[in-house]
Amino acid sequence: MLKVGVIGATGYTGEQLIEILLKHPEVKINYLAAKVEKAQGIAKIFPRFKNRIDLVCDNPDYKLAADRCELVFLALPHTVSVQAVSKLAGHALRIIDLSADYRLKDIKVYEKFYQTKHKDRPGLKSAIYGLPELYRERIRSARLVANPGCYPTAAILGIIPSIVSQSIDPDCIFIDAKSGSTGAGRRVLRGGSYDEPDDNFKAYKVNMHQHMPEIEQELSKLSDKKLKINFVPHLLPIKRGILETIYLKKAPVAKIKIESLINLYKRFYRLEPFVRILEQARFPEIKDVVNTNFCDIGISFDETRQTIIIICAIDNLMKGAAGQAVENMNIMYGFKEETALL
Amino acid sequence: MLKVGVIGATGYTGEQLIEILLKHPEVKINYLAAKVEKAQGIAKIFPRFKNRIDLVCDNPDYKLAADRCELVFLALPHTVSVQAVSKLAGHALRIIDLSADYRLKDIKVYEKFYQTKHKDRPGLKSAIYGLPELYRERIRSARLVANPGCYPTAAILGIIPSIVSQSIDPDCIFIDAKSGSTGAGRRVLRGGSYDEPDDNFKAYKVNMHQHMPEIEQELSKLSDKKLKINFVPHLLPIKRGILETIYLKKAPVAKIKIESLINLYKRFYRLEPFVRILEQARFPEIKDVVNTNFCDIGISFDETRQTIIIICAIDNLMKGAAGQAVENMNIMYGFKEETALL
Amino acid sequence: MLKVGVIGATGYTGEQLIEILLKHPEVKINYLAAKVEKAQGIAKIFPRFKNRIDLVCDNPDYKLAADRCELVFLALPHTVSVQAVSKLAGHALRIIDLSADYRLKDIKVYEKFYQTKHKDRPGLKSAIYGLPELYRERIRSARLVANPGCYPTAAILGIIPSIVSQSIDPDCIFIDAKSGSTGAGRRVLRGGSYDEPDDNFKAYKVNMHQHMPEIEQELSKLSDKKLKINFVPHLLPIKRGILETIYLKKAPVAKIKIESLINLYKRFYRLEPFVRILEQARFPEIKDVVNTNFCDIGISFDETRQTIIIICAIDNLMKGAAGQAVENMNIMYGFKEETALL
Amino acid sequence: MLKVGVIGATGYTGEQLIEILLKHPEVKINYLAAKVEKAQGIAKIFPRFKNRIDLVCDNPDYKLAADRCELVFLALPHTVSVQAVSKLAGHALRIIDLSADYRLKDIKVYEKFYQTKHKDRPGLKSAIYGLPELYRERIRSARLVANPGCYPTAAILGIIPSIVSQSIDPDCIFIDAKSGSTGAGRRVLRGGSYDEPDDNFKAYKVNMHQHMPEIEQELSKLSDKKLKINFVPHLLPIKRGILETIYLKKAPVAKIKIESLINLYKRFYRLEPFVRILEQARFPEIKDVVNTNFCDIGISFDETRQTIIIICAIDNLMKGAAGQAVENMNIMYGFKEETALL
Repeated sequence: MLKVGVIGATGYTGEQLIEILLKHPEVKINYLAAKVEKAQGIAKIFPRFKNRIDLVCDNPDYKLAADRCELVFLALPHTVSVQAVSKLAGHALRIIDLSADYRLKDIKVYEKFYQTKHKDRPGLKSAIYGLPELYRERIRSARLVANPGCYPTAAILGIIPSIVSQSIDPDCIFIDAKSGSTGAGRRVLRGGSYDEPDDNFKAYKVNMHQHMPEIEQELSKLSDKKLKINFVPHLLPIKRGILETIYLKKAPVAKIKIESLINLYKRFYRLEPFVRILEQARFPEIKDVVNTNFCDIGISFDETRQTIIIICAIDNLMKGAAGQAVENMNIMYGFKEETALL
Repeated sequence: MLKVGVIGATGYTGEQLIEILLKHPEVKINYLAAKVEKAQGIAKIFPRFKNRIDLVCDNPDYKLAADRCELVFLALPHTVSVQAVSKLAGHALRIIDLSADYRLKDIKVYEKFYQTKHKDRPGLKSAIYGLPELYRERIRSARLVANPGCYPTAAILGIIPSIVSQSIDPDCIFIDAKSGSTGAGRRVLRGGSYDEPDDNFKAYKVNMHQHMPEIEQELSKLSDKKLKINFVPHLLPIKRGILETIYLKKAPVAKIKIESLINLYKRFYRLEPFVRILEQARFPEIKDVVNTNFCDIGISFDETRQTIIIICAIDNLMKGAAGQAVENMNIMYGFKEETALL
Repeated sequence: MLKVGVIGATGYTGEQLIEILLKHPEVKINYLAAKVEKAQGIAKIFPRFKNRIDLVCDNPDYKLAADRCELVFLALPHTVSVQAVSKLAGHALRIIDLSADYRLKDIKVYEKFYQTKHKDRPGLKSAIYGLPELYRERIRSARLVANPGCYPTAAILGIIPSIVSQSIDPDCIFIDAKSGSTGAGRRVLRGGSYDEPDDNFKAYKVNMHQHMPEIEQELSKLSDKKLKINFVPHLLPIKRGILETIYLKKAPVAKIKIESLINLYKRFYRLEPFVRILEQARFPEIKDVVNTNFCDIGISFDETRQTIIIICAIDNLMKGAAGQAVENMNIMYGFKEETALL
Repeated sequence: MLKVGVIGATGYTGEQLIEILLKHPEVKINYLAAKVEKAQGIAKIFPRFKNRIDLVCDNPDYKLAADRCELVFLALPHTVSVQAVSKLAGHALRIIDLSADYRLKDIKVYEKFYQTKHKDRPGLKSAIYGLPELYRERIRSARLVANPGCYPTAAILGIIPSIVSQSIDPDCIFIDAKSGSTGAGRRVLRGGSYDEPDDNFKAYKVNMHQHMPEIEQELSKLSDKKLKINFVPHLLPIKRGILETIYLKKAPVAKIKIESLINLYKRFYRLEPFVRILEQARFPEIKDVVNTNFCDIGISFDETRQTIIIICAIDNLMKGAAGQAVENMNIMYGFKEETALL
């Protein structure tokens, strides 16, 4: 049994990690920590876990974590993760970091969008971006995996085949993203002092969200130029789920038929256990991916308007966070990739 | 007191019309009808109206409607409205039609998108499109007003000033629209047999929605060419409210600063009682327009990406349907335009 | 025009008060205050009010309030209200207090349930409990009105006729109450740190809620003994609305038929503008009272089980708080009682 | 691998059964059927199952079902189940019936509450009521299991220990039950033509619900007399979950302390894998049982009022239907009782 720990166990992502890991037949949760006022049983904090796990959750003790675990999940806010990684540095364990700290390779972009200095340049260099569909082989041997952001996971999976096949105009990418409220994390008083998500819907951080450069980074790697995208996230009055509607313009030279475009996507992802390409004229719905690790992708092409519209849906806490983290663990330790995720 | 009737009183729009008209000091509801199994008091059908209105709602009797009313609101499905208009034709009353039957001037477009023949070509010609911000003067004397669709109301109000000022590339308009479930009307089993809106979110009729040509028609009138837009509607897990995020590309020749763009919109709507232009970096939220007749518009410009992003919000049952219909009535009869709507 | 002010304008109740008062033809809002970090336009705080009201909301200045207003609404937390009342004491204005500070006549009960000392014994004595259905005449001339709690309003209105007619066993009263999330007020982080109302449902303060003694006080006044009730409040995953299901045992000596019981209620409330008694076999729903000032009451009697079940519904922010406060104002100033409330 | 089938696969319960059975390591789904317009892949009907199961769902063919399966789950409406059971009668398979058809032993009570004749008296006699906490041994060898109703599961588990220990007055039982909308099943247009559950809350079938006699039957068996309870169900604006607040009067002779009452419950359920008794002053919440097979029970005792209040929560589709059905299957075939349920 692989001994694992979760640091940041009381956030939405930490809670979801525990839920999945409890179902994993090859793993034992050996350590839980979070910023807490006092140590208490995790089942006291989350009554959902009563009679299912008997660990105490205390403030992080990195030495203890390293003693008890072979793998640690960091479900921490950005900047806190960098500190945790440095404290775990001398120990022989592997890390899956679910924060944004090790995702952006260009340190200046990180510092602009996260409004803080980055203090672990070498770590940043060695970290592997944990999107299995692109980097499975490198994840296998990684010591530090930077688990992708929720919005970028859906956006990148939805756009890659179109970029790689040079079907689209790379200067005309519009991503209209909608997320459930858990996407924003638990600690923040949701929406600020006079605002709450239920019975409401709104855009936020219009073309200013920190996930925009993460998407640009990964798409640019697959393109021959630095891409700029447009990205507007919105807050849905539900807890879980992301749906992104992506507007693309056909590349002038490309010849596109809807059938061949869908086939292109199907071929691209034919060996992927968690990407499902829908048939023509069908589009994903959040309810079909909630509580699963799937990314569902629907594709349309409007001949008159020369527009490709891609719609992607994931569960932000699963494929967008904890599910993908466990998928990465499964890859790192040679478990069947679907274990505990189907 | 103006004597009015509502035909189609049991749908969401009809119910909302009654709610507003009951608050109107210059109006008396004199007739209610809808497709019903048996005649019964409207307060039996909607217990909300108990002790507030004492009318019976029966199947439509157009002769009776004409006897009792000076103005009739038709809150009927398309094709049924055409029939109602023809039956009311010989009578001396004015009509505000909330269906789609008299909105599209090009009969071929109507027949393509509504999959039915149109049987009132002369009525279509004489009907006035009831968007006060564009056609207030003609509404004043209209006999038959075609009340705009909910999505088009928000889209058109959000785009007009950019089109008219030639700030944008008219070939690159993407409208990502999200609506509460009342937008689809009451009679339809929502989403079909295996599908329900709560806890879900999905796109539908991707670039195929019947409101797309309505938006194209009105924007084209203000442009020097026939415009084609992209329009993807989505279903929100709330009952009321529409928010549209509109992606526009700056026209190559245009010079734009965010401050001047916002001022352009403010000037354009400075005399309008129901359009509110938000300050820079502020964007509308559905909760701020629900149960009001306002259309809130937020504006952003991304210099790097040369993109204008306009976000509009309305209540689909108010400014998107019944509220705008009463606004049109206020204009037609010289009442203060805000009466019963503030 | 009556000059009024709202202190505590940024809570749910304050916001709702502004909404109603803006519709009131005989009133002018002249003063707004709340605990704020800095003074700003109320329309900045609530974009919903943009273009509708132009007042600044600053921290309370009681002298200024007294200068500008003839009537002040206090929408403040308990204990803060007592302080406000004392600061307004020397001035010639009338007060409607929406907190719990002046509702419980027995100071020991107040101190037990609110866990604090009460510092205004004379005020407590002179304050009038603002339930128009019981105390309309005293409200008319009151200087200080204690606006009832939301749960007690529904419970008391639902039980009074049964108590007064001695139809029930006064030792066997069970009130199962369910409220939308606005009932708990805005400032409190809802449900504490790891807990949120959406997609959830739970009981809280089982037989320990501070509204329990308020209900007991009012029912006891109409009975010949001190009553003890059972009261379990629950939190609904919606924003507005209260529904209470009240279980009563028939008094051994009483003879009851369902028709006569319903008639008893109808007669009791026949002159009341805001109480609606439903017909036999019909029961209230929250959707029918939301955004109204009505209290809907449905009544059943089970002969076999000798049980009377009363179901009541109100909007907690309307008849349960701001609506009832305006109703009280209308009574105090001789306006038509329904003004701005229909 | 045990070969199983689900008849009624397209309802909420059927869908949930498939979801659980797909996770079960000792079971293979070999047959799916439902009332459908045409045969199609179950993953077409529920896109959620795409890439996970490849069976076609057609109208029921009972011969085929018997050929392919050793165990069949019937997730059918009442009366339809009786017919299915009779058609499967000659075949060597076992049946778990999730309808109400085999739960009520008194045929007159069935016919009164379900308004229909019962056509399988012998089946009714031999069927075992599938509540493992009461009938585990009989379930083990049953050929036909009548899976309990959702409301009764929570109510019975919450009351049994109090009844058995003679702690309460059996003439004074009030159950205030609240259920998510999936409790009513999928085929019914929810709430009738002018009514929908979201943003609403209401009681229905006040002391007339068909689950009331089911609760009375099971509690009476454990008592020395025929019990009559009061039962009012309500419809919550969420999809899943039941919470019941049960009001009981202490038996005059009983001596009760809260600590000993809680211990009584703990001892009663100490070997049960799916009943969790909460600590003093803690009460269950729907969110903690959703998507689990647990029944959480919180207990309070009010000395002054002599009242015991029990609060129970389950997921209506899990412990209240499909989860409990799989639990019964696990018992019938000697699998670990928690398999696929944790």
